[in-house]
Amino acid sequence: MAETGFQDQLAQTAVATESALDLLLSPEAAAGETVRPGRLLEAMRHAMLGGGKRLRPALVAAAARLFGVDGEGPLRAGLAIECVHGYSLVHDDLPAMDDDDLRRGRPTVHRAFDEATAILAGDALQTLAFDVLADERTHSDAAVRIALVATLARAAGVGGMAGGQLLDLAAEGRFGGGAAGLMAEHDVAQLQAMKTGALLEASVEMGAILGRADPAARTALKAYAKALGAAFQVADDLLDVEGAAGTVGKATGKDAVAGKATLVGIRGVEGARLRLEQLTDDALVALAPFGEAAEPLRGAARFVAMRDR
Amino acid sequence: MAETGFQDQLAQTAVATESALDLLLSPEAAAGETVRPGRLLEAMRHAMLGGGKRLRPALVAAAARLFGVDGEGPLRAGLAIECVHGYSLVHDDLPAMDDDDLRRGRPTVHRAFDEATAILAGDALQTLAFDVLADERTHSDAAVRIALVATLARAAGVGGMAGGQLLDLAAEGRFGGGAAGLMAEHDVAQLQAMKTGALLEASVEMGAILGRADPAARTALKAYAKALGAAFQVADDLLDVEGAAGTVGKATGKDAVAGKATLVGIRGVEGARLRLEQLTDDALVALAPFGEAAEPLRGAARFVAMRDR
Repeated sequence: MAETGFQDQLAQTAVATESALDLLLSPEAAAGETVRPGRLLEAMRHAMLGGGKRLRPALVAAAARLFGVDGEGPLRAGLAIECVHGYSLVHDDLPAMDDDDLRRGRPTVHRAFDEATAILAGDALQTLAFDVLADERTHSDAAVRIALVATLARAAGVGGMAGGQLLDLAAEGRFGGGAAGLMAEHDVAQLQAMKTGALLEASVEMGAILGRADPAARTALKAYAKALGAAFQVADDLLDVEGAAGTVGKATGKDAVAGKATLVGIRGVEGARLRLEQLTDDALVALAPFGEAAEPLRGAARFVAMRDR
Repeated sequence: MAETGFQDQLAQTAVATESALDLLLSPEAAAGETVRPGRLLEAMRHAMLGGGKRLRPALVAAAARLFGVDGEGPLRAGLAIECVHGYSLVHDDLPAMDDDDLRRGRPTVHRAFDEATAILAGDALQTLAFDVLADERTHSDAAVRIALVATLARAAGVGGMAGGQLLDLAAEGRFGGGAAGLMAEHDVAQLQAMKTGALLEASVEMGAILGRADPAARTALKAYAKALGAAFQVADDLLDVEGAAGTVGKATGKDAVAGKATLVGIRGVEGARLRLEQLTDDALVALAPFGEAAEPLRGAARFVAMRDR
């Protein structure tokens, strides 16, 4: 079963990622560093270790494997994306942002440490992502490494994840703008494509870069990743209304409380479910050129649509 | 006069950097981006435009020119470092960190906008730095670009600038640690080498990378940059006790109020002045192998020691 294929990939990636992060965040200073202050390192470890589905690293691995590439390259590219994802969660949880006390059932970084440490831990995690990509263990060819850097930077910046997070706060009326409920569906889709989609798309793209995919394959994978990213967010919105806090590991029903515009709010639960099915189909259709070899990526699309947290 | 040589370099770099930043932070989305949310972009522009000595970009340019390299490469490497420097100032000024209302005589980003926007603007500026380096306009050779990324990432991360900022907060007793006055001189020096020195050293190093400097030249420039970075911080500490707020453009006397351990606190004003002279000499001595060609870098060392803000 395809889902099993991707679940295997997820499980393997989770173990490899956890252990690689543990090494990456070891107390010994790396070459070119002075010392690693213990408190900062501990906060980074708190943010990164002991949890997380490692969906993004698994997507890198599954996309690279489509071209016969596995091993340390996809693992390290996955670490880099996971560091950017982790930094964004640490900063999103801050009192000035979403003000969350819990993340994956554990205290958020600013609750376990303090706000200043959480800000710096997020900052240092973003830096670490690029440090990891620049290292020649990621790929022997500098041109491949710099393409990974460019892809991740474009996905994370003002026109990607960080920009999407700002639009998300604006949609909550945080900057005195109009009511969130008035947002058009295409605005919600764009916001979510930036906030969540960009990094998921970058995961697939980075796998394709490591696999030295040709332009046609890159285009097909881009369409796949776009649909996958959108499906992820619709599934997330559905979880927010349907999930129980115990399963989801964070507070639920927050979107409604925040007056946040979501697809569920615009189309209702059934409409959102239909949209999720359509997006999943779009993702599967985009994989048609790859035949059997793309089964793990198909499994990823089904996993994203069916996940319960 | 050598100082004039570097002052010319500073003036030229400041004009070129300001205009390049204005373009870089233009409202149009770059390739691979969706849109650039106006509020976030405005906050990034507020942080980056209309001020700053552009000392780091000028150091990149002066170091690259030592090897006959100038033009867009050093300019873009300088932009990247300036973005990292700018992001660190935006985050350092936050209420949870140094809680400053003024920066270069203007409201800090979180005062002009709000905390959430300031956090995201800093985040996006860091990302932008790596985006700039990854672009082939920075250098046609991917190996050179990835070396720039590696150097900047190492200088900015947990073992560099971000780590130094955490040690600085710890030295103020912010995490319930011991009193700052008890810090030994070598601990203060290490803290400052990380917080301020690492990025100044990276500026010179990135100029050397663009100049394809040989190992002997790299070693000499490293020694120069280390002394320069230390001198910069001693001069900064002296300014804090001696400067007038009007000239410095930010609050002075804050170190003593914060009970912060500085070299001035440990050695007194005269002792710190002597140390500054010694560090400036160290920087000049390290440049001996380069002869006349290093005059602008000599001017930089003298400028750093004598600057009044």
